[in-house]
Amino acid sequence: MKKLSLAALALACVSPAFAGECSALQCAPFFAVAAAVLALLVAFICYKLMVKAPEGSPRMIEIAAYVREGAMAYLRRQYKVVGAVFAILFVIFTILAIFKIQNPFVPIAFLTGGFFSGLCGYIGMNTATKASSRTAQGASEGLNRGLQVAFRSGAVMGLCVVGLGLLDISLWWIILDKLVFTASNMANGLSIGGLDLVHAGTDNAHKYIEITTTMLTFGMGASTQALFARVGGGIYTKAADVGADLVGKVEANIPEDDPRNPATIADNVGDNVGDVAGMGADLYESYCGSILATASLGAALGTGEGAVENALAFVLAPMLIAGIGILLSIVGIFLVRCKEGATQKNLLLALSTGTWTSTALIIIASFGVIKGLGLPLGIFGSVVAGLVAGVIIGQATEYYTSDEYKPTKGIANQANMGAATTIIDGLAVGMFSSGIPVVTICVAILAAFGLAGGFASTSQGLYGISIAAVGMLATLGITLATDAYGPIADNAGGNAEMSGMPAEVRTRTDALDSLGNTTAATGKGFAIGSAALTAMALLAAYLEEVKIWLGKLLVSAPDSACLKVVKEYFSGAGDLKTAISGIGMKDFVSMYDLSLLNPLLLCGIFIGAMMAFVFCAMTMKAVGRAAGAMVQEVRRQFKEIPGIMEGSGKPDYARCVAISTAGAQKEMLIPSLLAIIVPVVTGLVLGVAGVLGLLAGGLTAGFVLACTLNNAGGAWDNAKKFIERGNHGGKGSDAHKAAVVGDTVGDPCKDTSGPALNILIKLMSMVSVVFTPVVVKFAPVVQEWLGLIK
Amino acid sequence: MKKLSLAALALACVSPAFAGECSALQCAPFFAVAAAVLALLVAFICYKLMVKAPEGSPRMIEIAAYVREGAMAYLRRQYKVVGAVFAILFVIFTILAIFKIQNPFVPIAFLTGGFFSGLCGYIGMNTATKASSRTAQGASEGLNRGLQVAFRSGAVMGLCVVGLGLLDISLWWIILDKLVFTASNMANGLSIGGLDLVHAGTDNAHKYIEITTTMLTFGMGASTQALFARVGGGIYTKAADVGADLVGKVEANIPEDDPRNPATIADNVGDNVGDVAGMGADLYESYCGSILATASLGAALGTGEGAVENALAFVLAPMLIAGIGILLSIVGIFLVRCKEGATQKNLLLALSTGTWTSTALIIIASFGVIKGLGLPLGIFGSVVAGLVAGVIIGQATEYYTSDEYKPTKGIANQANMGAATTIIDGLAVGMFSSGIPVVTICVAILAAFGLAGGFASTSQGLYGISIAAVGMLATLGITLATDAYGPIADNAGGNAEMSGMPAEVRTRTDALDSLGNTTAATGKGFAIGSAALTAMALLAAYLEEVKIWLGKLLVSAPDSACLKVVKEYFSGAGDLKTAISGIGMKDFVSMYDLSLLNPLLLCGIFIGAMMAFVFCAMTMKAVGRAAGAMVQEVRRQFKEIPGIMEGSGKPDYARCVAISTAGAQKEMLIPSLLAIIVPVVTGLVLGVAGVLGLLAGGLTAGFVLACTLNNAGGAWDNAKKFIERGNHGGKGSDAHKAAVVGDTVGDPCKDTSGPALNILIKLMSMVSVVFTPVVVKFAPVVQEWLGLIK
Repeated sequence: MKKLSLAALALACVSPAFAGECSALQCAPFFAVAAAVLALLVAFICYKLMVKAPEGSPRMIEIAAYVREGAMAYLRRQYKVVGAVFAILFVIFTILAIFKIQNPFVPIAFLTGGFFSGLCGYIGMNTATKASSRTAQGASEGLNRGLQVAFRSGAVMGLCVVGLGLLDISLWWIILDKLVFTASNMANGLSIGGLDLVHAGTDNAHKYIEITTTMLTFGMGASTQALFARVGGGIYTKAADVGADLVGKVEANIPEDDPRNPATIADNVGDNVGDVAGMGADLYESYCGSILATASLGAALGTGEGAVENALAFVLAPMLIAGIGILLSIVGIFLVRCKEGATQKNLLLALSTGTWTSTALIIIASFGVIKGLGLPLGIFGSVVAGLVAGVIIGQATEYYTSDEYKPTKGIANQANMGAATTIIDGLAVGMFSSGIPVVTICVAILAAFGLAGGFASTSQGLYGISIAAVGMLATLGITLATDAYGPIADNAGGNAEMSGMPAEVRTRTDALDSLGNTTAATGKGFAIGSAALTAMALLAAYLEEVKIWLGKLLVSAPDSACLKVVKEYFSGAGDLKTAISGIGMKDFVSMYDLSLLNPLLLCGIFIGAMMAFVFCAMTMKAVGRAAGAMVQEVRRQFKEIPGIMEGSGKPDYARCVAISTAGAQKEMLIPSLLAIIVPVVTGLVLGVAGVLGLLAGGLTAGFVLACTLNNAGGAWDNAKKFIERGNHGGKGSDAHKAAVVGDTVGDPCKDTSGPALNILIKLMSMVSVVFTPVVVKFAPVVQEWLGLIK
Repeated sequence: MKKLSLAALALACVSPAFAGECSALQCAPFFAVAAAVLALLVAFICYKLMVKAPEGSPRMIEIAAYVREGAMAYLRRQYKVVGAVFAILFVIFTILAIFKIQNPFVPIAFLTGGFFSGLCGYIGMNTATKASSRTAQGASEGLNRGLQVAFRSGAVMGLCVVGLGLLDISLWWIILDKLVFTASNMANGLSIGGLDLVHAGTDNAHKYIEITTTMLTFGMGASTQALFARVGGGIYTKAADVGADLVGKVEANIPEDDPRNPATIADNVGDNVGDVAGMGADLYESYCGSILATASLGAALGTGEGAVENALAFVLAPMLIAGIGILLSIVGIFLVRCKEGATQKNLLLALSTGTWTSTALIIIASFGVIKGLGLPLGIFGSVVAGLVAGVIIGQATEYYTSDEYKPTKGIANQANMGAATTIIDGLAVGMFSSGIPVVTICVAILAAFGLAGGFASTSQGLYGISIAAVGMLATLGITLATDAYGPIADNAGGNAEMSGMPAEVRTRTDALDSLGNTTAATGKGFAIGSAALTAMALLAAYLEEVKIWLGKLLVSAPDSACLKVVKEYFSGAGDLKTAISGIGMKDFVSMYDLSLLNPLLLCGIFIGAMMAFVFCAMTMKAVGRAAGAMVQEVRRQFKEIPGIMEGSGKPDYARCVAISTAGAQKEMLIPSLLAIIVPVVTGLVLGVAGVLGLLAGGLTAGFVLACTLNNAGGAWDNAKKFIERGNHGGKGSDAHKAAVVGDTVGDPCKDTSGPALNILIKLMSMVSVVFTPVVVKFAPVVQEWLGLIK
C-alpha cells in the first residue's frame, strides 16, 4: 500500500512536466482516464480492506442487516421512480433530436451521466451500510481503529465519485474527438438513422466548440439523478428522524437510537440515504458540471474576442487538473493514519494533514499545469482564488454552527427563555451567516475573473471563474471522504447503542462523528462555493450553447422566427453563418438585450428568487407530511404491540422503513419536476434574457437561502448538543426542551431544503442548457403571440 | 359634511376635462396643491370630529393618557436620534454640494422630505392615541359608533400622508419651475453662495429633466425617516409584545392586556409606534417615490429614444392622477357609514364600498387624465395593470393568512404535534406564499411595460411600470385609512380590557380589529406591490441621474476619470456634451456593461440578496435583545412590587415604556446605517453596474423574503386565534401552547423584519440616486486602484 501511495505521489509531481512536454496535448485525456481508473482501483482496495475488518457481534450484524436492507429497498424503489423519469426524458430528447432541435448525443449521454451518478450512490450506500457495524466494532477496540474503518469507507465514496465522473467525461471526450469529429466526418458529415451527428462542412476551428457544447449537455443526467437523490434522500432522512424524535424522545421519553423505537432503523437508514447517497450525487454533479462548463468556455476562447492560438489547452486544463487532483486525493487519503491509542486531537490532526496536504499540492500542481500548457499565468490566480474562498466559507460555516463560538452559544442561551426565542435567534443567526460567504464569493468571482484577464476579455474572465470551481473540487476525492465518513460514524453509534455495547463505544463513535463535523465544515464550504462558481460559469456556457444552436438552426430552419433578431443585428454583415460563429458576449448582450433594464430579464430574476423559496417550501412541507405519517405509525406500534416498551415485544422496523420510503418517493416528484419544468416554461415565455435572469435570481437568492437554512439548522443542532453536555441545566431541563424544538425545526432546513437548493441552482442551469434549442427556436413564436416582442 | 363630499365628487368628475382644457398644463401643479390642501383640511375636520366624541370613564382616560405619554416620549426620543442622523447627512450633502458633487438643492430638500414624513408620524400618533379611549367608549354604545371614531382617526393619518406628500412635491415643482429654472436663470445661470443652482446655458429642452432629477433626490429624506420609523417602531412594538407575552401569558398565566402586567402599556404604545407611525412613514415614502420616479422618467421621454413632443404631459400626469386620487379618497372616506345597529357584515360592506368606489373611480379618472393630456392610451393599460396586481396580491395575502383557508388551518392542525411542526409548517406556508405575488408582479411589470409601448421604446415602457405604481397608490388616502384604523381598534380593545369595561365592548373592538385585518390585506398588497414597481422605476431613474451628472461633470471636471468610459464610447462622435445629453438606455447598457455577464453586476445582485437577509437578521436579533431586557424588567417587577398579582400593587408602566424606547433607539441605528452605507460602498467598488445589481438583488430577494416573513407571521397569528376560538382543544391546550410559540416567532417576522424590507428596498434605491455623483466620479478611481477595470 505504501508503495502505491509513493508511486501516486511521484506521478503527481511529474505530471506537470509531462503535460508540458506532451506537444500535441493528445495524451492528456488518456492521463485523465488513467487517473480515474486508479481512483476506482484504490476505492476497490479500500472497500476490500473495510470488508475484511471484523463485523462484530451477531446482534450488531443483525442490526446492520436491517439498515442495509432498508437502504437497499429504498434505493431500488428510488431507482424505479428515477428510471421512469429518465425514460420519459429519454423519449422527449429523442423526439427533439429527430426534429433536429436537440443534440443527437444527448439522449444517450443523458443516460450515461445518470447511470454513473446512480452507480456512485449505490456503491457509496453499499459500502456505508457494510461499514457501520465494522466501525462500531473497530471503535470498541480503539479510536484509531474506528477512524480507519469509517474513513476508508468514506474514501470509497469519495474516490468513486471522482473516478466515475472523470471517467465518463474523458471517455466521451476521446470518443467524440477520435471517432466522431474526425477530419473526414467533419468534411462529409456523419449521420446515423437520420440523426445528424456531425454536420457536413464543420470546420476544424469549431471542432472543440462542437464537442464541448455537446458534452456540456451530458451534465443533465447527473443533475437529474442528483436532484432526486438529494430531495428524496432528504425527505426520507428527516421524515424518519423527526418522526422518531417526536414520538420516541418527546412522547415516550426514550433515548435516541433506542431499539424499542420502531422508527430507529428508518432513522439510521435515513443517514445513509440522505447524507451518503444524496451528498455523493450532489458533488458528483458539481464535479462534472465544473469540468464540462470550463471546457466549454475554454473552447470558445479559440474564437471570438480575446482569441488565443490554442483552444485545446484551455479545454483540457480542467481535465488535467482534475486528474492530478485525483492522484493527490489518493496521497492525502493514505496520509490519514494515526498511531494506536491516539487522542481525538491526534485524529483531527491526521484528517487535517490529509486534506491540507492535498490542497497544498494541488496549488503547486495547478501552477505546473497552467505553465506547462502555456496558459496565461493569471489563470493560476483564479484557481487559488477559488481554493481560498472555499476555505474561508468553510471556516465561516464552522464559526456560525460550532458551539465553541458566540452564535451557537447565543442560541443555547436564548433556549432559557423558551422555544420561541430559540427559533427567532436561530433564524437570525442563519440569515446573518450568509454575509461572509456572499462577500467571499463576490471577491472570489471578481478575483478569478480579473486575474484571468476578464476586464480585457470577458470570455477569458468567465473561464477564470469556471476553473476556480475546478480547482476547488480537484481534491474532492479526499474532501468527500472526510464528509462521508461522518454519517458512517453516526450510524456506527446507532449500531452500538442498539446492540447494547458498552457506553465507551458510543462515546468513541460520537467523538468520531463530531470530528467529522469539524472537517465537514470545510467540505461544505467547498460544496456550496463550487456550486455558486459553477452556476456562474454555466450562465456563460449557456450562451455558448445558444450560439451553436443559432448556427445549426440557420442550416436546418433558415426562416425560423428566432433568426430575426440575429438578422437584424447583423444586417448588412454579409455572410450570416460567419457572423453567428463570431458572436461574442457583447453581441449577445445587445442582440437579446441581456441588460437589467429589460423587464423580461428582471422578471426572470424575480422568478428565480421565488423558485428557491417555493422549492424549499415544498420540500419542507413534504418532510412534514412524511413525518406525520411516521408519527402515526410509531404511535400505533407503541399502542398495539404488547411489551414493546419493556423490550419484550419486537417493533416492526420494516413498516417504518416502508413508510419513509413511500413518503419520500411520493413527495420528491412534484418539487423535482418543477425544477425541470420552470426553466423551460420561463425560457419559452421570457426568452433567452428571461432564462439568464432566472438562473441569476436562482443562484443568488438560492445561495443566500441555502446558507441561511444550512447554518441555522447546524447551529440549532449544536446548541442542543451544547445543552446536552450539561449547560443551561442539561438534558431534561426546560432549556433543553426548547433546544430540541430548535433542532427539530432545523432538521429539514439543514438536511432537506438547504442542500437541495445546491442542486436546484445547478439543475436549472443544466435544464436551460439542454433545452436551449427548444427555447431559442420557439420562444420568439410564443413571445410574439403574447405581445412580448417588438 | 354631505355637501363637501358632493363637491369633491363633482370636482373629481370634471377634473379630467379640466386637465384636457388647460392648454399650457401650467395649472396642473396648482390643482395638485389644492387637492393636497383639501386633504389636510378634511383630515383636520375628521380630527375635530374624533376629538369631540366622548372620552369615556376616568379610568379609560387615565389609561389612554399613559399610552399617549409613552408614545410621545418614544417619538421625542426617536426624533432626537433621527435628527442627529439628519444633521450629519445634511452636513455631508452640503460639503458634497460645495465640492460640486451633489445637487445644491438636496440638503434643504432632504430636510423638507424628512420633516413632512416626521410630521405625518406625529399627527397620526397624536390622533391614534387620542382615539383609543374614544373608540372604546364608542364601541360600548354600538359597533357603528366604534367604527366611526376609529375609521375617522385612520382617515386623519391617510389624508395627512397623501396631503403632505403631494404638497411637498407640488410646491417644490412650482418653486423650481417658476422661480429657479426661469428662462433668464437658465441662460445666465443662478448661483448662490458659490453653489450653482442653475448652470448657465441650460437649454429649454433639458429644463424638465433638470427639475425632475433634482426632485427625485428629495425622496431620500422621506426614505431615511421611514426607515427609522419602521425599524425603530418595529423593534419597539415587538420587544414590548414578546416581553409582555413571555412573562405575562406564559409564566404568570394572566390574559393579554391585563393591567397587572407592567409591559401592557408598552405593548399598547407599540401598536401606535409600529403600526400607525411606522406604516404611515413607509407609505408616505412609497407615495412620494412613485410620483417622483415617474416624473423623472417622464421628463426623459422628451429626449432620447422614442422621443415625444410634450414631455411636460408625461411629467405632470402622476401629479394629476395623485391629486384626483386624493379627491376620490375623500369621497370614499365619506361613503364609509352605516346605520346604527349594523352587523359586522354591514360594516365590512361599508368599508369595501368606500375602497372599491375610490378604486373604480380612479380607473375612470386615469383614463380621462391620460386621454386629456394626449398621452398614449396604452399608459392607461399600465395603470390598470398596477391596480389589478395590487388587488390580486392582496387576495393572495388574505388566502395565505386567513384562518378560513387551508394554509392557516394546516398550521393549526400541525400544532397538535407540537411547536416544532408548527414552525416548520408556518415557514413552508410563508415561503410558498411568495409564489402568487411574484408571478403577479412579473405579469404586471410586463403588462405595464408592454402596454406603454416598452417593446418599441424601453424608456416609455419603464414609464409605464412607474405610473402603474402611481395608480396603485393614488387612492392611498382611503386604503391607508382602512389600514391604520386596525391598530386603533386594537388599542381600544386594550383600553377596554384594562379599564374593566364589560366583555361585550371587547368583543366589539375585536370585531372591528378583525374587520380591519380583512381590509388591510388588500392594503398590504398595494403597499408591497407598489414598493416593487417603484423600486423597478427607480432602477431606471437612477440611470437618468447618472446621465445628468455625467453632463455636469463634463463641465466641472472635464478631465475626471469617470468620463473616460463616455469618451471611449462616443469616440469620434464630435461634441461630447450633445452626446451625453442624448444617452439612451441602450447606450448605458453598452457603456457600463449592464449585462448579467458582467461580474461586477452579478456580485451586486449577490450583495443585494444578502443585504435583505442580513438586514432581517439584524432587526430580528434586535427584537430578541430588546425583548430580553423587557422580560428581565417584568420579572423583576413581579418579584419586587408587593401585591402586583392581586391588583393592589401598581406596576411601573413607565419603566417598561422607557426600556422599549431605549432598546428600539439603540438597536435601530446599526441596521439603518448599514442600509445607507452599503449602497455607497458597493457603488464605489462595483460602480454603476454593481449598484444596479445591488438594487435588483435587493428588490427581488427582498420582495420574496418580505412575502415569506409577512405571510408566515400572519398565518401563525391567525392559526393561534383559530385555536383560541375553540378548535384543536382551544385555549390552554397543548396545541394552543404550540401555536403561541408560532405566533411569538411570527411577531418579529411580520411586524419588524418583513415590513422593514419594504423600506430597505426603496431606501437603497434612493441612497443610490442621491449619491450618484459621488459614485460616478470616484468609482473609476477606486476601481482602477483595485484593478477592477480595464
